[in-house]
Order: sequence, then structure tokens, then C-alpha cells
Amino acid sequence: MSEPCPLTESREGKAVIRHCDLKSYTNSRGFVDPAWAPVFYNPRMKCSRDLSTVILSAYVKLSARKEVSVIDVMSGTGVRGIRYALEVPGVSQVILNDVDPKAALLARENVALNGVTDVVKVFSKEAHEILASTKAEVVDLDPFGTPAPFIHPALRAVRHGGLLCATATDLPPLLGIYPSACIRKYFSKALEAEFSREQAVRVLLYFIAREAAKLGRVIRPFYSYYLDHHIRVCVIVEKKERSGFLEENLGIILYNPKTLERQLVVLSQASEICGGRLAGGGWVVGGPVWIGELWASEASQEISREYMARQAELNLCRKGLSVATKIDQERDKPPLYYTTEKVASTYKLAEERSARQLVDQLALKGYPSSLTHFDEKGFRTTANVADILEAWQAR
Amino acid sequence: MSEPCPLTESREGKAVIRHCDLKSYTNSRGFVDPAWAPVFYNPRMKCSRDLSTVILSAYVKLSARKEVSVIDVMSGTGVRGIRYALEVPGVSQVILNDVDPKAALLARENVALNGVTDVVKVFSKEAHEILASTKAEVVDLDPFGTPAPFIHPALRAVRHGGLLCATATDLPPLLGIYPSACIRKYFSKALEAEFSREQAVRVLLYFIAREAAKLGRVIRPFYSYYLDHHIRVCVIVEKKERSGFLEENLGIILYNPKTLERQLVVLSQASEICGGRLAGGGWVVGGPVWIGELWASEASQEISREYMARQAELNLCRKGLSVATKIDQERDKPPLYYTTEKVASTYKLAEERSARQLVDQLALKGYPSSLTHFDEKGFRTTANVADILEAWQAR
Repeated sequence: MSEPCPLTESREGKAVIRHCDLKSYTNSRGFVDPAWAPVFYNPRMKCSRDLSTVILSAYVKLSARKEVSVIDVMSGTGVRGIRYALEVPGVSQVILNDVDPKAALLARENVALNGVTDVVKVFSKEAHEILASTKAEVVDLDPFGTPAPFIHPALRAVRHGGLLCATATDLPPLLGIYPSACIRKYFSKALEAEFSREQAVRVLLYFIAREAAKLGRVIRPFYSYYLDHHIRVCVIVEKKERSGFLEENLGIILYNPKTLERQLVVLSQASEICGGRLAGGGWVVGGPVWIGELWASEASQEISREYMARQAELNLCRKGLSVATKIDQERDKPPLYYTTEKVASTYKLAEERSARQLVDQLALKGYPSSLTHFDEKGFRTTANVADILEAWQAR
Repeated sequence: MSEPCPLTESREGKAVIRHCDLKSYTNSRGFVDPAWAPVFYNPRMKCSRDLSTVILSAYVKLSARKEVSVIDVMSGTGVRGIRYALEVPGVSQVILNDVDPKAALLARENVALNGVTDVVKVFSKEAHEILASTKAEVVDLDPFGTPAPFIHPALRAVRHGGLLCATATDLPPLLGIYPSACIRKYFSKALEAEFSREQAVRVLLYFIAREAAKLGRVIRPFYSYYLDHHIRVCVIVEKKERSGFLEENLGIILYNPKTLERQLVVLSQASEICGGRLAGGGWVVGGPVWIGELWASEASQEISREYMARQAELNLCRKGLSVATKIDQERDKPPLYYTTEKVASTYKLAEERSARQLVDQLALKGYPSSLTHFDEKGFRTTANVADILEAWQAR
């Protein structure tokens, strides 16, 4: 068959993937965007795929399912789904789909190359169309940009108790840099704040929770992370209407950039708080966002353990292990992390402490505290701002 | 072919429709719910279909399109689409669909009976599936209950500049009687208030506007109404991302049940107002809702004129004419109507004035005022509550 581009091969986990040779698309300044190649393959997302295979393995194990089917509706070279078939025990069927027939053709070639033709089928339809006519335990959305338009059909395609994973690479809206675009896509007002990466995850989860409620479904976060300029969330989807589901898990962010005080408030209390403490004082309001947990504790434990176990054999990225390990420490700590950088600049502190030092100091004083994978200068703590400043000064 | 039920025939407009004889499904207390028959046909919705055919005619005329295709994805007996084919000049193709093969079979019979086999095609697929694989100028959603789960795929199926019409019969949530269900389905807090029928339309339009924004589309209301325990909205759908579209057209409702003062506030001002006037005083906050116009003025004029022209020949319902006429009077008056009943009970007024008397009195004093089709005791006015009370006392 005729190839869509000059090809090369890369090894990822247990897979060998034939993909467009990005060297052929480098511009005169030596830069290349993977989107310039006829079939999309981004080598810089390998680490995210490493983590994704471990997350899916944890889901299969914890859900105690014998057989799991997976749909990847924007599959490009097919790398993600082929790795699922090769590296995740229990994956019995993978449906790959790419609206571009060139991509579907290359994905089929990769499926054959990796010997998984029995398990992996490749289609070339419009994403909404394949989602409207297919059901699976796991739906994986890995779009270029926002996943927002695909959440609705993806939720419908997930079987009861199944898993929906979605990547978002449209960080300028989600981080509050383009708030108007965030309102348009996610209908949430994202603040510019030092915790904006966590906020981005909470905005996406809020959006998914809303889409789910509309369709008579509820979600429970299974795993969420920020890595290399994208966020990714995986949620359990259940077909049931639970009264109070949105009221309990959605809320607003109260943030005072002058003092760094912050708080998540359930929606029902938002209007009362409005009249009282917000009057004056420089508070700003963000959201709505998901205010519930970002990680299932059993998922977090299993993923950090399993990532470590597989890392050497499959040559999984080191950064993925750091993410999984930090998440397992931060998962039960308070929402909306601080950063040492912001504390120092806001309170005109001469010397910046490392987040690690500060966490140790706060723990010593009896405040449960941790680092966060969201930001290397970030930390979570039950201490309030005054306590943080006191710990900062301590030696 | 074998029939799904004992059949009878009804004439509606230019159509003759074969449908289940509801007499066969009457219970021991003499009551019958049309949903009990194997194929749904509700004779009490004839008036809404009368109005719908005139609305669609107005759309075809005002959009200056030569040919228009229509999808009705929950078509039951096919009555709505068959009437569109027979009564709306310019309708060149109608796609009927019902997930129940029994309904599709009966619809095909009705299509043949009315001699429109060239124009009307009948399918039996899941609604999401047919919407994901079809495009048309007009998409008509006439579900049993809420249209919320279908708005997303319907918006995608409407061609640029086309029309989306949606009926909602789930009034207890939309009227604020079950606010939690309204939040779950529409993510808006509906208040119990005398203007709750208008609020219901604004909640549904808000919801559609949000779904549209998510999909890179904007909407403009073409026509909206309340009739016989349901609401229905028709909006023009355009494929474009317009900055500020949501910010301008969405807002909250401020309502003071003690004084009957009310106001629509754009979202961006909502948090400021929060701190100020809401403190004390008994104000409640509803929404978000659509705060823009509910009717395109040219649509309103054309529909009231055309309804009158056709009424006698096609035996269109009288109530439909009353709705169209009142809408043409109220369309440019202030949002959130009052009712004479609520004014009287709130201000302990001994004698209730008729809405008509009050509107005349207010107009005499120079306040643009009108009746509203939403409520026979309702009225719109630019006057404030004090002015209304003064007009009430005047003889």
C-alpha cells in the first residue's frame, strides 16, 4: 500500500509503532509540530501513554472484570490502543477509530505489525458517529485540543461501571489565561492562580459531571493528573440518577490573591457566602468546579505500586513514576495547593524555601501536608496562611 | 401487515393519521394516558402541531430557502413530519425516525396513506445514532419528557443557519417544583414564581445556548411558547464562535417574593450585585437563564399573520391563534411578567382587577404594557411595582 508519509519506527512499552518521520516536516528554523505530519504521532506524549496503560491496568484489576473492551475514537497511528492490547491484561477488544482514512490505514498496519489483529479493530468514521453506535467498558478520548464536544457521546458509549478517560491540551482556557474561551467550552470561570493546574482538572471534572447528570449518569473520579502541558482525567461512569450528586460535588472557588486565602464552597452555600464575607477584602470567585476527590484511594495506591513494578521492564518514563508517587501522597490532603513562589512574592519574603522543606516543617508542627504533582513548587497543607508564614520563618 | 393496536383515523390539518384507538386503553376509571398505547399519538398535542406547521412555514419563508429538509427523531405515528410535508411549502425531504419498529411501521403506513412517499422517509434507529449520521436544515425534537439529552446531537445535525425546535413536557422540574431535578437536567435553579412558565423557556434556552457554545455554535431564538402543559422553543443555529455570546445572553434572575420586584442580570454583574443589594431584603436568586429575546420580531409577525390566514381552511385550533396574537404583542415588552393574582395576594388587595383592565390603565399612564400568552392573568409592563399598585387603585 502507498504510505501517507516517510515512515520511521519507535518502540513504546511492548509496542513497535510505525509513524511519520517528523524530521521530514521540520521547518526552516528547525522546529516541528507533530500536527504538521499527515498522521498524528506525538513522541512527547509517550510518558502520558505509559501512565495511561498503568491506569487502565489498575481499573481492570480493581473492577474485577474478566474482559474489558476499549474504544479510542481519535486513534492516529493506533499507538495508545495497541499498547492497551499488549500491556493491559484483560483487554479483550480494542476499537480504534480515526476520521482520516490515511490514519486508519496506518493504524491497521501497526495492528498487524504488533500481532494484535484478533483484538484490535480499526474504523474510519466521524467520532460522534462511532460513539453513537458502540458500547464499551472503557472510552478513551485523546483529542487535539478540548475534549468538551465529545464528552456527551463518550458518556453514552461507556457501559455501566465503566471508565471514561479524557485528555485536554487546551490549557490556556483551562488555566484561566483565556477565561472567555473557558466559559464558552466548559461554562466555568477559571481564575489565574498558582493552583490553576488543579483548577483545570476540577473544571474538566465539573464539566463531565454536568454532562453525565444530563444523561442520567453519575461519575466518580478514578485518577487525574497534569503532565507535560496537558491534563487527563479518568472517571467511573454509572447509569443512575442520584439526587444531590451535583449539589454535593460541585462548588465554587473563593480566592483572595492579596492574602492567598482560598476555599472550595458547595454551590448551595455560594449565594449566602456572597452577601457576607465577600463584601470587600479582595476575594474573587471562580467556577463552578468539581469540589470532590480527584483520585480514588485504591486506584492511587495500585497505580503507584504497579508503575514501579513495570517501569524497568517496559522502559516507562521516570516522570510518570514521580507523578504517581506524589499523587499517592497528596490524594488525601486539602484541595487548592499553595506554591512557595507565590507565598514568597505575595508576602515579600526575602528567601524562598523549598516546598520539601516547608512540607517537613509543617508536618513537624502537626499539619498533614504534602508535595503535589501539579507543580514542583507546590504544596498542600491543612495549615492556614498564618501557620504557613510561621513555618516559613522557622529554622 | 399486522397492526400494533386497534386503529382509528384522525384528521389534522391536511393529513389523515391512522393511530392506536385510545378507547381500547382506557382504564377502569375511564382515564387513558396516550403513553399506554403501543405507538404514541396524543390528540391533545394537535394544537401545538398546528402552531408548529405555521412556525416552520415562517422559517422557510424568512430564511428564503428554496428547499428545506426536516428530521423528526421521535416520530411515533409520523403525524408531525407528514403535516410538515403536506402543509409547509418548500419542505423537500422529511426524515422520520422512531426507535420502536412498530411505530416506524405505522408511520410508513401513514406516509403512504397521505401520498408523501417521495418526500418522507422512515427509519427505526436510536435517536442519537440517526442524529450523528444525518444533517438537515430543521431538526425537530418532540420527546416524551425532557429534550435535554438530545440537544447536543441535534445541534450537530442542524446545518448552518438551520432551525432546532424542541418540546419539553417535564414541567415540574422546569417550573421550579422539583428544583433538584432541574439542576440535574438543565443545571439551572428554577424558582417557584408567578413567571415560572417564562422562566421555563429561559432555562431551556440557556441550556441550548450552552450546549451550542460547547460545540462552536451560537443560537438566536426564533419562536418560543407555552401551551397545554408543555413548552416549545425554536432557535436558529449558526456554526460560529462568537466571543461574548454567552456573557451577553445568559444571566440570573433576581426576585423578591415579598415585594414582587424582579430583574434579569447579566452573569458578569451577578457577583457584584451579590455583595450589595442582595444583603437582606428577601431577594432570591434563580438561574442561570437566557436573558435575551424569546422571539425574532419578524418571525412573530409572520406567524401571527399566517396562522390567521390558514386557520379556517385547515381547521387550526383557536388557542393557537390566541397564543400567536398575544406573543406578537408581548415580544418587545419587558421580561418576567407579573400576574394580577400574585399582586393581589402579596399586597392584600381586596378586589382583583383583570389583566386586561390593568394593561389598559398602565398604557394610559404611558407605560408600554401587554398581556402575555404564558398566563391568562399575566401582564408585562415597564412600570415598577409602585406604579402597578397605583394603576390598580385607579378607576
